[in-house]
Amino acid sequence: MIPRSKDAFGAAMSARWRGDDGRLVIERDDGLVDLDSFDYLAPFRRWAPHERRAVRNARGRVLDVGCGAGRVAIYLEPRGLEVVSIDVSPGAVRTARARGAADVRPMAASDVRRADGPFDSIVMFGNNAGLLRDARHGPWLLRRFAGLTRPDGVLLASTVDPYRGAPAVHRSYHRRNRERGRMGGQVRIRARFQRLATPWFDYLFTSVAELERLVLGTGWRLDDVIEGGGPSYAFVLRKG
Amino acid sequence: MIPRSKDAFGAAMSARWRGDDGRLVIERDDGLVDLDSFDYLAPFRRWAPHERRAVRNARGRVLDVGCGAGRVAIYLEPRGLEVVSIDVSPGAVRTARARGAADVRPMAASDVRRADGPFDSIVMFGNNAGLLRDARHGPWLLRRFAGLTRPDGVLLASTVDPYRGAPAVHRSYHRRNRERGRMGGQVRIRARFQRLATPWFDYLFTSVAELERLVLGTGWRLDDVIEGGGPSYAFVLRKG
Repeated sequence: MIPRSKDAFGAAMSARWRGDDGRLVIERDDGLVDLDSFDYLAPFRRWAPHERRAVRNARGRVLDVGCGAGRVAIYLEPRGLEVVSIDVSPGAVRTARARGAADVRPMAASDVRRADGPFDSIVMFGNNAGLLRDARHGPWLLRRFAGLTRPDGVLLASTVDPYRGAPAVHRSYHRRNRERGRMGGQVRIRARFQRLATPWFDYLFTSVAELERLVLGTGWRLDDVIEGGGPSYAFVLRKG
Repeated sequence: MIPRSKDAFGAAMSARWRGDDGRLVIERDDGLVDLDSFDYLAPFRRWAPHERRAVRNARGRVLDVGCGAGRVAIYLEPRGLEVVSIDVSPGAVRTARARGAADVRPMAASDVRRADGPFDSIVMFGNNAGLLRDARHGPWLLRRFAGLTRPDGVLLASTVDPYRGAPAVHRSYHRRNRERGRMGGQVRIRARFQRLATPWFDYLFTSVAELERLVLGTGWRLDDVIEGGGPSYAFVLRKG
């Protein structure tokens, strides 16, 4: 969990929900700064098309990993699905609850236990495939998720291929990552909002080929890739 | 001058001029981050109304201090005024030249010499009254500018009253400033863009009352204050 004194992400969610400017600054460990203008409050019609298509595969009892302001639950719950939304940001949890998500829990992906399941679907949208983190944690988390889902379970996630059309500032970062034994698209970042800064954390962007290697032997197989136009894509994992 | 390897400001100006996203991150020394969405390339019709009104006082030979992407020269030169534009950012100088400003010099306000003058008007727009910096430098710079201008010279500047409607995050900063013998609205900041960060520098925001004290004995008098709506305002100094 992110302590409240460092919950830049949650403070930004709350600000947006109040109608204020809630854009986050994303700082990378090489000094790169970027603005996060992602619309965490978007209704379904404003979601990225590849997420709109991928979410059609959701059914039954859903685990929404890194729920942010709760947009997945807010879309799926009125359609009869049961959604357990989790986030490590206390402010995101509060915002998702305030917006009407039914079951929102302050919890990290790695802390979901068998007792919380079983689930039919796991959703990692808003590029939250990034929570696979690195070449060790990713397969570990996928195996764990396999253990939480029913035999016909499905995992839906979105991400960005970090190599497609990458400018020089990213290519040199990928190269340094590889020199240090990290995956190319493994970024160490933190989010900043007003005076708050989250702890530094690793977040993983992968090509489809890298994703296939991460999935091997985890109890999942890559069933579908949905191109998002540009480097974004969604993917669908199924058991077995 | 800002070295090219730290010219976040200039890189952002160039990006905007290319049509890319050139928003800067402004980082304050207490960890506050903010986005600078100011339109440095704005044509006159999109300037803030208080700057549009203040600039009517410009005439003759003009020194534009902190010219950014050159919008003041681009407006005044076709109207027959002669403008010397200066900026400490090499990228800003390049961008202002590329956009057609006639005489753009890489130079700090404090480095303008008598030989560069005399001027009829000095312009410090885009909140560049901030370049007065602090309670010592401000009067020094104003005296120096008085020496560079003709007897009927005028100084036009814009700024923000830091105390009007300030949220808690600013009020506590002002308080700490005063505890350390700094002016309340004296912010220590740097600009960041992509991987570039400028050196830290002081930038001054003042109430009208504080401004009047800074002006005392400098050869200028506060002739007019033009409210900008909210905490923004422009002001006009005249000699004597």
